[in-house]
Amino acid sequence: MSLLLLPLPGSEALASRLGALLEAERADTELRRFPDGESYARVDTDAAGRVVVVVGSLDGPDLKLAPLLFAAAAARARGASRVILAAPYLAYMRQDASFRPGEAVTARVFARLLSTTFDAVVAVDPHLHRLHSLDELYDVPTEAVSAAPAIVEYLRRTVEDPVLVGPDAESGRWVGAVAEALGAPSIVFEKIRRGDRDVSIGGADGASMWRARTPVLIDDIISTGRTMIGAANVLAAAGFRPAVCVGIHAVLVPGAYEELRSAPISRIATSDTIAHPSNEFSVDAPLAEGIRRVVARLG
Amino acid sequence: MSLLLLPLPGSEALASRLGALLEAERADTELRRFPDGESYARVDTDAAGRVVVVVGSLDGPDLKLAPLLFAAAAARARGASRVILAAPYLAYMRQDASFRPGEAVTARVFARLLSTTFDAVVAVDPHLHRLHSLDELYDVPTEAVSAAPAIVEYLRRTVEDPVLVGPDAESGRWVGAVAEALGAPSIVFEKIRRGDRDVSIGGADGASMWRARTPVLIDDIISTGRTMIGAANVLAAAGFRPAVCVGIHAVLVPGAYEELRSAPISRIATSDTIAHPSNEFSVDAPLAEGIRRVVARLG
Repeated sequence: MSLLLLPLPGSEALASRLGALLEAERADTELRRFPDGESYARVDTDAAGRVVVVVGSLDGPDLKLAPLLFAAAAARARGASRVILAAPYLAYMRQDASFRPGEAVTARVFARLLSTTFDAVVAVDPHLHRLHSLDELYDVPTEAVSAAPAIVEYLRRTVEDPVLVGPDAESGRWVGAVAEALGAPSIVFEKIRRGDRDVSIGGADGASMWRARTPVLIDDIISTGRTMIGAANVLAAAGFRPAVCVGIHAVLVPGAYEELRSAPISRIATSDTIAHPSNEFSVDAPLAEGIRRVVARLG
Repeated sequence: MSLLLLPLPGSEALASRLGALLEAERADTELRRFPDGESYARVDTDAAGRVVVVVGSLDGPDLKLAPLLFAAAAARARGASRVILAAPYLAYMRQDASFRPGEAVTARVFARLLSTTFDAVVAVDPHLHRLHSLDELYDVPTEAVSAAPAIVEYLRRTVEDPVLVGPDAESGRWVGAVAEALGAPSIVFEKIRRGDRDVSIGGADGASMWRARTPVLIDDIISTGRTMIGAANVLAAAGFRPAVCVGIHAVLVPGAYEELRSAPISRIATSDTIAHPSNEFSVDAPLAEGIRRVVARLG
């Protein structure tokens, strides 16, 4: 396969690392914004008959949307046979249903738009809440790859005798997979959400039997940090030592990182799907593997 | 017709004024951005079987794109029979062709996206450069209304004995229409562009015969202001008094307004398609008329 990697602004280093793993060339591009706020996109490298992989994490998605659509259009203008999106962090996975009359189901609008723009989508641990698969949202082939092996490898290297702790039921899938691979015990709490930033934790009874171990909190997204902080406080109250806090996607809204660091947390470790000082392990390998798989499926 | 006006954030006052002209209700909405940068959209007012007009100027378009798509989706979720876009300033009209290999023709990508989102589009004086009509870009009915009558009315009220001056050939259509309506003479210069911000003016020979009159520069978009400043300098060099500078769309990138005010320009007057301190006349009436016409066409 003759892949050509096309990084969005800010994802150039990721594209170079993926290029090394996939033995693929990185495209020369001109992606910029005019003084009036409109975007411009040009692909300089010839893409005739090639599969172009647009590489970019979609955190803070609104400002990236137009450049993303234009980058795909530029790749097609350069003759690409297929244009694929590889998004370490895929946005708009939260509102996957209508909870009140007249709500835009933004997950569906966004997925429909990407499905008309790209021939396939690869993402790392998309936040599937009420859904089981990206295929329920996307009309094109998708590959959701997991950061769990990278988390396992990181914890094996850095934490002795862990107990894996899920701050809520949604985190159960990562906690279960990581605990099983490490041969370690696990606990999953129950989250009670009252608003964007107001969260409390229940179901922690019986956790204290593991309190000789180092608690490792795991969740897919750390956004406000409230879920993690609530769980860390529950663990501290139960007599645990400060927790290691592992997140896949360091969304971390303004102020969240500072609040997390003043909680009973010994260390915050995230993957590099979103660039952040807390990045401790990489998803390059699973992302490259996801790209390989989806390209093979497209044939 | 039972219109429902749905303002994007920042266009609430415009929607209220259009509501008065069209005897139409303004929708109650919740349009906001979560702390992580994703947008939310909900329409509270029942829209069952109604035509919803999303009202919003698309200057600085990239950050507005997702909210625009979601507002339309929310209107449809509320039962709208048709969803129309009324954009006083329509974005992405500049790159209407590919000038170098691999360029995204952003005007086409943007228009295709809006055409799949809205049932019709109304705009004030869209910047039609190499195109003759919005219909060459849009797959849905469009109405391009003109600010020229509002400029005529403004100049009749504020300038005695004008000579209308177009800084380049593209401005000729507005200059011609306004000059004819005022029964005043006109001149159109020739612009030589070397880059985004580097512009020079030619073809000004013979202009000086009108130098007893007040020169009124007219263009559709004032962006960097360089075109206007170049023309104002040519007029000053030809012995004219400082020019009145009229623009329809006050795009005015950072620094441009200050530079214009230090040029030989007595006054800068723009329409209210983009909110700016220089706004001196309103396009409410033609915009309302355009909405009326397109709704009638949709039947």
